[in-house]
Amino acid sequence: MSSQNPIFIPGPTNIPDVLRKAVDMPTIDHRSPIFGKILHPALDGVKKVLKTTQAEVFAFPSTGTGGWETAISNTLSAGDKVLATRNGMFSHRWIDMCQRHGLDVAVVTQNWGEGIPANIFEEMLVADKAHEIKAVLATHNETATGVRSDIAAVRRALDAAGHPALLFVDGVSSIGCMDFRMDEWRVDVAVAGSQKGFMLPPGLAIVACSPRALAAAETAGLHRTFFDLRDMAKGYANNGYPYTPPVGLLNGLKLSTEMLLEEGMENVFARHHRIASGVRAAVAAWGLRLCAARPELYSDTVSAIRVPDGFDANKIVSHALNAYGVAFGTGLGDVAGKVFRIGHLGSLTDVMALSGIATAEMVMVDLGLPITLGSGVAAAQQYYRQSIGSPQQKAA
Amino acid sequence: MSSQNPIFIPGPTNIPDVLRKAVDMPTIDHRSPIFGKILHPALDGVKKVLKTTQAEVFAFPSTGTGGWETAISNTLSAGDKVLATRNGMFSHRWIDMCQRHGLDVAVVTQNWGEGIPANIFEEMLVADKAHEIKAVLATHNETATGVRSDIAAVRRALDAAGHPALLFVDGVSSIGCMDFRMDEWRVDVAVAGSQKGFMLPPGLAIVACSPRALAAAETAGLHRTFFDLRDMAKGYANNGYPYTPPVGLLNGLKLSTEMLLEEGMENVFARHHRIASGVRAAVAAWGLRLCAARPELYSDTVSAIRVPDGFDANKIVSHALNAYGVAFGTGLGDVAGKVFRIGHLGSLTDVMALSGIATAEMVMVDLGLPITLGSGVAAAQQYYRQSIGSPQQKAA
Amino acid sequence: MSSQNPIFIPGPTNIPDVLRKAVDMPTIDHRSPIFGKILHPALDGVKKVLKTTQAEVFAFPSTGTGGWETAISNTLSAGDKVLATRNGMFSHRWIDMCQRHGLDVAVVTQNWGEGIPANIFEEMLVADKAHEIKAVLATHNETATGVRSDIAAVRRALDAAGHPALLFVDGVSSIGCMDFRMDEWRVDVAVAGSQKGFMLPPGLAIVACSPRALAAAETAGLHRTFFDLRDMAKGYANNGYPYTPPVGLLNGLKLSTEMLLEEGMENVFARHHRIASGVRAAVAAWGLRLCAARPELYSDTVSAIRVPDGFDANKIVSHALNAYGVAFGTGLGDVAGKVFRIGHLGSLTDVMALSGIATAEMVMVDLGLPITLGSGVAAAQQYYRQSIGSPQQKAA
Amino acid sequence: MSSQNPIFIPGPTNIPDVLRKAVDMPTIDHRSPIFGKILHPALDGVKKVLKTTQAEVFAFPSTGTGGWETAISNTLSAGDKVLATRNGMFSHRWIDMCQRHGLDVAVVTQNWGEGIPANIFEEMLVADKAHEIKAVLATHNETATGVRSDIAAVRRALDAAGHPALLFVDGVSSIGCMDFRMDEWRVDVAVAGSQKGFMLPPGLAIVACSPRALAAAETAGLHRTFFDLRDMAKGYANNGYPYTPPVGLLNGLKLSTEMLLEEGMENVFARHHRIASGVRAAVAAWGLRLCAARPELYSDTVSAIRVPDGFDANKIVSHALNAYGVAFGTGLGDVAGKVFRIGHLGSLTDVMALSGIATAEMVMVDLGLPITLGSGVAAAQQYYRQSIGSPQQKAA
Repeated sequence: MSSQNPIFIPGPTNIPDVLRKAVDMPTIDHRSPIFGKILHPALDGVKKVLKTTQAEVFAFPSTGTGGWETAISNTLSAGDKVLATRNGMFSHRWIDMCQRHGLDVAVVTQNWGEGIPANIFEEMLVADKAHEIKAVLATHNETATGVRSDIAAVRRALDAAGHPALLFVDGVSSIGCMDFRMDEWRVDVAVAGSQKGFMLPPGLAIVACSPRALAAAETAGLHRTFFDLRDMAKGYANNGYPYTPPVGLLNGLKLSTEMLLEEGMENVFARHHRIASGVRAAVAAWGLRLCAARPELYSDTVSAIRVPDGFDANKIVSHALNAYGVAFGTGLGDVAGKVFRIGHLGSLTDVMALSGIATAEMVMVDLGLPITLGSGVAAAQQYYRQSIGSPQQKAA
Repeated sequence: MSSQNPIFIPGPTNIPDVLRKAVDMPTIDHRSPIFGKILHPALDGVKKVLKTTQAEVFAFPSTGTGGWETAISNTLSAGDKVLATRNGMFSHRWIDMCQRHGLDVAVVTQNWGEGIPANIFEEMLVADKAHEIKAVLATHNETATGVRSDIAAVRRALDAAGHPALLFVDGVSSIGCMDFRMDEWRVDVAVAGSQKGFMLPPGLAIVACSPRALAAAETAGLHRTFFDLRDMAKGYANNGYPYTPPVGLLNGLKLSTEMLLEEGMENVFARHHRIASGVRAAVAAWGLRLCAARPELYSDTVSAIRVPDGFDANKIVSHALNAYGVAFGTGLGDVAGKVFRIGHLGSLTDVMALSGIATAEMVMVDLGLPITLGSGVAAAQQYYRQSIGSPQQKAA
Repeated sequence: MSSQNPIFIPGPTNIPDVLRKAVDMPTIDHRSPIFGKILHPALDGVKKVLKTTQAEVFAFPSTGTGGWETAISNTLSAGDKVLATRNGMFSHRWIDMCQRHGLDVAVVTQNWGEGIPANIFEEMLVADKAHEIKAVLATHNETATGVRSDIAAVRRALDAAGHPALLFVDGVSSIGCMDFRMDEWRVDVAVAGSQKGFMLPPGLAIVACSPRALAAAETAGLHRTFFDLRDMAKGYANNGYPYTPPVGLLNGLKLSTEMLLEEGMENVFARHHRIASGVRAAVAAWGLRLCAARPELYSDTVSAIRVPDGFDANKIVSHALNAYGVAFGTGLGDVAGKVFRIGHLGSLTDVMALSGIATAEMVMVDLGLPITLGSGVAAAQQYYRQSIGSPQQKAA
Repeated sequence: MSSQNPIFIPGPTNIPDVLRKAVDMPTIDHRSPIFGKILHPALDGVKKVLKTTQAEVFAFPSTGTGGWETAISNTLSAGDKVLATRNGMFSHRWIDMCQRHGLDVAVVTQNWGEGIPANIFEEMLVADKAHEIKAVLATHNETATGVRSDIAAVRRALDAAGHPALLFVDGVSSIGCMDFRMDEWRVDVAVAGSQKGFMLPPGLAIVACSPRALAAAETAGLHRTFFDLRDMAKGYANNGYPYTPPVGLLNGLKLSTEMLLEEGMENVFARHHRIASGVRAAVAAWGLRLCAARPELYSDTVSAIRVPDGFDANKIVSHALNAYGVAFGTGLGDVAGKVFRIGHLGSLTDVMALSGIATAEMVMVDLGLPITLGSGVAAAQQYYRQSIGSPQQKAA
């Protein structure tokens, strides 16, 4: 019966009942006019969530990984140079994908726990007098380490260098949770998924493209059909889709964006910050520290928590599941075994967060870590109590 | 979005996803053979939950209150004498119902927080040489006060007095959660509802009748049609129902009993005891005490918690809802304003219980009560940790 | 997989997906303010469906049978005289219920297929100089025979006789489908259920009471608690309920009435008339006739179809289920074996109706009746085609 | 309310209630062992549906189009030659995809309505002494024309030529409906989708690969990441997935294959044949003919019906939707305006099929075509009646 427990993985998130019902649709004829009345409001809603009036939004039956592939395969050609930071598992995978597609990736390696070094980017862009770098890849929120990078700073680096490279941002675990300003930051491709801030089941790659990115799609040399933006755009223009659309998920996306916009994006961000701050207060009370190196890097959607040296963090995740029926996230890649992760994004309340914190405490004490039961809970309670009256309350 | 929070009212309970789906059926023809394949397994499942092979089980589209009315209107005649204890709101209401039906109720009044005084019952039964008392009414678990009475002791009182009165038990908030032995205790009518231990939405009055109760139905003088056991029995014998049956709820009851029996009733009871014990550990850590007067009266399905004199307990319930989106139970009747209640029955895990305890702490501190944040949580965590490996774990 | 086929029993009906989802709610605290926001709009919606501003509406966790018991037990006393017609199984059962509650029923027996004889009622009411008749019971639509009686005529009979008897109307299979004018007809108690015109699962008895009926409830002598209107009214006044309310069904009722009122009641009635007319065209094309004696008695919610003498109509129902997975209604009582019934109420389209008609044709030919395949379908198609542009279309 | 009408597009199909519920899951941790218990039974079920013990099955969060891209991008390199027939919209699109990926496609153009010309394939394969043709692409069922090609004949052509080319089969609208023998026909890659024979919502590309195809994936030069079989295989080996898996759809696939296998694949095929034969009987009765040129090409999943010259078939589709709320399929590509399509695959009964046939009749008469109302229905009824006792009945 533990399906009643909330989950604390950094996505897919807990799904509100109304969104489950919106996704669970009877079959409609996707070639009838009904489809356009689902599709376009969903896409328009995403635009507002992204704070863009310039970009076009596309939703593929895929995942964030498919969104990345959409970004690069529609805008680049084999041998093109791109610039990226490797500071976690997801930025690493994106780099790997570029290499497998024959791109030449200039990689800036950072310690896991650090963000994107905009200053190094700037130096490299300035040095690239020939403008060989065609795109800069930035992972807004590294889900593996709980690090939020400063995309505005990346944009400033590009501008300072007077460099025309496209700016691609992986916002899979940030969009719909933390502030994202597509137009202000002049992001060219933003990638999201249905299963994070949009609180839906997985199955949609959501890709927003600036006019420059769309123009690049006309000449890009990489092969693609399923992920071809031109086919998708042509379909949308006719209230259609280039193949069978995932109507239920699109219907869910329509309602999800309505819910987010009704709450107000600034309130949504404040709610995520509030829940996250309570979790961080608990971590501090436990005497542990985050993988993220500095407070300005702290993610409001996931906290990767370092365990004492020599302790296997994976034990926390498996014991939580086996003993208490609660799912936390394991550490991935370079930080495997060194961190466990508490996802705190999407449809989550302070009350639910407290049950995750309380579970983590039991688990750590069970496994012999020097944690005081109730200590993290009390710290989070204190934070949640004092921030009452905040937007979270209205959302609840 | 607070529909994601668990609820902590003493029923209706949190409903497992699989049971919601079992109830949410497309319409079937209830006069077709399909109906019998839902009805009879559901009724047979209830028998096993009640530990009876003697009784017949009936499920009416109604509630526990309708179950009580079924019990009395099918077995008694106007002017009949019945014996009952008033020790809480629900025993009070049952007495009131008897009086409104023209029965003569011998009421033993107890302080709210006390259980049924089997010794007094015995004295009164012994004194009733003429056997004017036709039925003894016993509320197994007083939902208003969190008091579990000893039904076996009531049976012993009847036996000691050699008294032939029928024994009716309100098991609405005990059956499916705490041990109930219909045959061993020779209960004549047991009343339950769908929305407590069976973890279903409200809408079913579940009534089990011994052969003696069914015999009484042949001669009882009180008027009834909707609640007539004879019509219902005749319907069942033909795989039918005397009117339109609530097929979805019956389908849910079929699955619910399968789930309970697969877990094992003793494991179900142990699970409830474990969750309840954690809540009680928290109450003790807060320095508060239960409405139930003594440990042997403590209910494993609901705890009514006394607040300090002069403090209005209703404020806790309203503040919890308004500030944190969590539902606790208010005090009713004699203990209105003096207690708040935490329901811990049905589909609930220790993790969910901890979120309720944590919320209660925040609420009480917000309202100025001298509670230490995290104190109750820590006590419950310690209890839950140490009882790990218990049946709850397997159920999860 | 035949759960995909529509059903053609005269209730419970096919349930629209949105209503199933409205009923399938997570548990809320029914003592919180949320409950009132579900309850009152639902009751207000029913008032509008009933075209009443005078009456109060009550919804019990019960069925139509419970609604009848509510009507009589709240307004009458043992020995009271009531006037009723027996012209089908449901009017028969209501009479039986009255007798079991100790009422003195003056029964006007009609052939099954006939309606209420308002002229005979008038004679009897005129003759009742002492006004011993306290209530007149009228079944608006006899579900067993597919006969709609003229309630306005019954009211005229009462008025012509200057008789003060209360007027009770069983509208279980008419309300929400065929015109019902609570105020204009001065109906004192109207009884409906959730599972017919409201297109919901069974589980609600919906009872509307005029001020005169409510006044009678203050002095009525019959025993009742579960069905007591005074307790229910007191609960509603406090946004509450006298016991655990069936929140999901009430939420469904709220949405159901919104849907009906948005469509417009006259359009709802026209839609039912259109679907029914197509079925009747098919019956005529088959060379069969209805149980209902004359066109003005034809019900728009159910057609009871007479089979040739000597043929067992039940075979049609069982063969349809076994061979084609389709549910029709059997004949009940006096017309058992003589008719089969096609329910055409609630959420049904002409397209669905055609599949029922086509199935009935196959079944009758399979069983050797002299029916031409496609004949009834063609007649119904012709009717449906020509009535296109009618309100049904907009509803679709 | 027309969401109650069945749909008659050739996929996505009507979804059985139990499959909708299986897909509508609460979120689980896809990195926990629970995931493997959903994934592997689903994949194993697909193997049995495909009659293969040799192949490996993969399920991507994508559609049939993505399945095609998986097939070619994992096995071929730019410049590779492939052989294909263009005989409808879907075979055309596959050819187009190959060309966009830089493959050299030898196209055999057929009239739309014809199948794959195995004899021409054989000649071309024999002529390809250098074995430049790396793969033969075959669309098992052309959804646009309702043509089923003979895959066994294509295999015989390859064998007769002693040619080692891989054999890829698009079985999107055949698998799970019409006989498919992966091992016997030595198919190297078979492509299916969730939304046709598996009766699920869209969102899964299901791809089965022979050992030869998997070996080719080790050296293929085309770029891919999202659709990379090696990443997917590595994930599966660890009960994982290379990115976020569509858990609900996989859970649905598990149940879907259980349902199909319990019914028995031969029974499933017979059921589709029976439903389709009824539709074809109706078409003949209308005096119309199918797009498919000859009976051996007739598809059991979709019928494309030619309308009289000069009549715009699209009017049928739009009028059916607007006037009756029923969805048929339009003609695509070369046969746009010349055919309309009735999908009869997945979860469909004869009763539902009759409602589609009846609707088509009304529509055609409304639009002035010389059709006799009831004529097609009668022909289909006659067929369905006489084939009663067939497997369909047991499935129902």
